[in-house]
Amino acid sequence: MRIVSADTGGAVLDENYNPIGLIATAAVLVEKPYRTATLSIVKYSNPFDYDLSGRKALRDEAFLALKLARKVKPDVIHLDSSLGGIEVRKLDDPTIDALRISDRGKAIWHELSKDLQPLAKRFWEETGVEILAIGKESVAVRIAELYAGIYSVKWGIEYAMREGFVRIGLPRYMSVEINRTRILGKSLDPREGGLYGEIPIENGDFEWQVYPNPIARTFMVFEVKI
Amino acid sequence: MRIVSADTGGAVLDENYNPIGLIATAAVLVEKPYRTATLSIVKYSNPFDYDLSGRKALRDEAFLALKLARKVKPDVIHLDSSLGGIEVRKLDDPTIDALRISDRGKAIWHELSKDLQPLAKRFWEETGVEILAIGKESVAVRIAELYAGIYSVKWGIEYAMREGFVRIGLPRYMSVEINRTRILGKSLDPREGGLYGEIPIENGDFEWQVYPNPIARTFMVFEVKI
Amino acid sequence: MRIVSADTGGAVLDENYNPIGLIATAAVLVEKPYRTATLSIVKYSNPFDYDLSGRKALRDEAFLALKLARKVKPDVIHLDSSLGGIEVRKLDDPTIDALRISDRGKAIWHELSKDLQPLAKRFWEETGVEILAIGKESVAVRIAELYAGIYSVKWGIEYAMREGFVRIGLPRYMSVEINRTRILGKSLDPREGGLYGEIPIENGDFEWQVYPNPIARTFMVFEVKI
Repeated sequence: MRIVSADTGGAVLDENYNPIGLIATAAVLVEKPYRTATLSIVKYSNPFDYDLSGRKALRDEAFLALKLARKVKPDVIHLDSSLGGIEVRKLDDPTIDALRISDRGKAIWHELSKDLQPLAKRFWEETGVEILAIGKESVAVRIAELYAGIYSVKWGIEYAMREGFVRIGLPRYMSVEINRTRILGKSLDPREGGLYGEIPIENGDFEWQVYPNPIARTFMVFEVKI
Repeated sequence: MRIVSADTGGAVLDENYNPIGLIATAAVLVEKPYRTATLSIVKYSNPFDYDLSGRKALRDEAFLALKLARKVKPDVIHLDSSLGGIEVRKLDDPTIDALRISDRGKAIWHELSKDLQPLAKRFWEETGVEILAIGKESVAVRIAELYAGIYSVKWGIEYAMREGFVRIGLPRYMSVEINRTRILGKSLDPREGGLYGEIPIENGDFEWQVYPNPIARTFMVFEVKI
Repeated sequence: MRIVSADTGGAVLDENYNPIGLIATAAVLVEKPYRTATLSIVKYSNPFDYDLSGRKALRDEAFLALKLARKVKPDVIHLDSSLGGIEVRKLDDPTIDALRISDRGKAIWHELSKDLQPLAKRFWEETGVEILAIGKESVAVRIAELYAGIYSVKWGIEYAMREGFVRIGLPRYMSVEINRTRILGKSLDPREGGLYGEIPIENGDFEWQVYPNPIARTFMVFEVKI
């Protein structure tokens, strides 16, 4: 099974470890044996001018996943929304109302589906590929999350090269290591069976550190300074 | 404390990683220091003709646990049903109605208790051994789950020897390794403190692979082919 | 950020692995990189005469945290009560009623706040330091929990030196190791990013063992005998 997925993560943190805004949306192609991505692309946001309400992220993810899917022609697309794996093309208003999710979740999807439902329907008619709202059950979504974290670290290094310093909150229970040629991001949850991601970087002169976020247990902080 | 427990697990998966039916019910004797079984027995089901509703598994587990218990005379029997550790011999209809569980759970236990309650009562009268509905709190239940996974792998190897190939979904966050003489199954959750199981196998010529189930995060897939 | 936190844990267990009473309240100073404590103090309870209802623990923790805070002047104090990080000095009766917690939790806090709210208000007026009810989100609370476990082990060794034997239930998913000079306690959850604690001990002649609590999955038992 060839899966395209996308997720958003990595946040600039203030000095009290509170998030200011999200950094990266990553889309990935995941293939058997489903431990990492065989291809990834990224779209950066401006974390200093970001709407944290959650609507923006999912829309960005859907569009970036479609962009990658048009190129690699997967069997299925997984979005990070835990609706039990329902097909997005079927998410009309009565179907959303019938979902067993919170009223806030329904309000978000009523708005989101105006764009995403026709988009998913058209993509399915053209290609036969379904877009599923599967969320946390999907290994591909988790791998996309790890890549969003790695790309955030890459963004952070470039930002620190210009501005001197940045503190980034990584996605849930993941850690990163940097060597001369690449950034390696690993899940800290062994129950996931060894999920990881990696991207190349250029050599640079900076110091970095990874440590637990003191006010968000199981989340790590990445700091970089020149 | 000498505990007998039983659990059912391991599922034949279709090409989309959806379960077709369950493979093995294992009963185990667990003794201090409670990291593995000192004895195990198995009852195989036909995964290609299996009722996935959950009633069959628990009944099979109770009967297999009793079979082992008659032989090894434990202090207590743990069943995989999370009713807070209540004694099964006390599960009459008014007691079931008073449990804080879902209506579906109550309906299942109203039916199950017709057989199991008198069975548990008789066993307790004869031996003084209680059968507890303790579920996920019990380490012995988890060890039985690991053994159900290992026996499913053994079944899978024998099936593949005849049919060429099979894909099995293992119980939650466990992995398996195979060497020339045995199948070793290990919990992937270090919080459990190092739980594992092992059974002997005969030497055979086959290829195997373990990898994450892409649509069921924290569950691994075991594939074997000749 | 310099954080003081406190937590209570470690329980004497009976022969069926049920808790009799809690052993130790530990207060810790946690500083960047937030993986262990730079300072810790302990207050022991009598586990054989302990009120397990939960009111006593939180009150002990608040007083011990304040004792340490007066000495080390932290930026903030974290208490192990998961109220979303609300300031304890603001917990008057209408605020408690408006919290989204259980009725039992509200009853406990209505009683607790009689002491703790004025105490927190006075401390804040004198020092500017807030006491937050942050609970499980706080890494400092978790580190305090690990120290409560280590101090319980120390208590257990001293108890066994006098009485011959004791069986202790450690806080959730933590393990301990003892060498000639110290007790080391480690989180068993790698998602927490490597949290641990250590305290010195005097050399002594005893045997010890750590193994899973058979009726409380993810909790370990520490046994010591001379």
